[in-house]
Amino acid sequence: MTDRSRRDVILAATALAVGVTATGTRAAASTPASKASFPPVVHHVFFWLKNPDSKEDLAKLLAGLRTLADIDTVRGIHIGVPADTEQRGVVDGSYSASEILFFDDVEGQNAYQVHPIHKQFVADCEHLWERVVVYDAKAVAP
Amino acid sequence: MTDRSRRDVILAATALAVGVTATGTRAAASTPASKASFPPVVHHVFFWLKNPDSKEDLAKLLAGLRTLADIDTVRGIHIGVPADTEQRGVVDGSYSASEILFFDDVEGQNAYQVHPIHKQFVADCEHLWERVVVYDAKAVAP
Repeated sequence: MTDRSRRDVILAATALAVGVTATGTRAAASTPASKASFPPVVHHVFFWLKNPDSKEDLAKLLAGLRTLADIDTVRGIHIGVPADTEQRGVVDGSYSASEILFFDDVEGQNAYQVHPIHKQFVADCEHLWERVVVYDAKAVAP
Repeated sequence: MTDRSRRDVILAATALAVGVTATGTRAAASTPASKASFPPVVHHVFFWLKNPDSKEDLAKLLAGLRTLADIDTVRGIHIGVPADTEQRGVVDGSYSASEILFFDDVEGQNAYQVHPIHKQFVADCEHLWERVVVYDAKAVAP
């Protein structure tokens, strides 16, 4: 079983665990989907490019970020750029790229940090950014 | 159909759209789950409590955050506190609570901002926090 197919099975299992079924109906006695639809540990990283106007540098960074999906402990990934929402004072839309990774536990996140694919990403891309901010969060019980 | 059951159907549809099936096998010609397993628009909010050591204030805030799951345009929610990952220099673990909401589009996020449940949450809980930082991101095409 490849890393990718193993992850797909795990994602399917997660979908089932929260009561989402292939027919679109809700399983009896399931956990509310709104509270259990994602793996519990989140690692959210924001990158500010040295050259924030360089589309080429952004493309390189995004390509590097996509390689992280193949790390086996990564259970979900969302790679983005600032959304065109209303820029109120509390909204920080100054970053260049956003990477959200989900893990089953802190150990999974620790394993990711030292994984060769992650190290290669840092080696290939760290010259592109001038600042990184990381937030790690774990889900609280309902 | 209630808001909750409608959301469950949508979550199921999302799971199917990314090739996750009830049997744990991968649908042919599907988008890689690693790149499309979450709705595209993310709204991530970090809260710093006025009384960061007050478990009671944190509980009130978390209870308030949970009510946001019932807003119909919210496609997924993750509520958390700082994870006990290694506190490297780039990791900001100083916040009290984290709220991640997923939306199908920016319009869904805009509708959430003015929804009565969201306004009630702000009215009930804003006295608890001294600082809020918001990051809105939209997924980039692979």
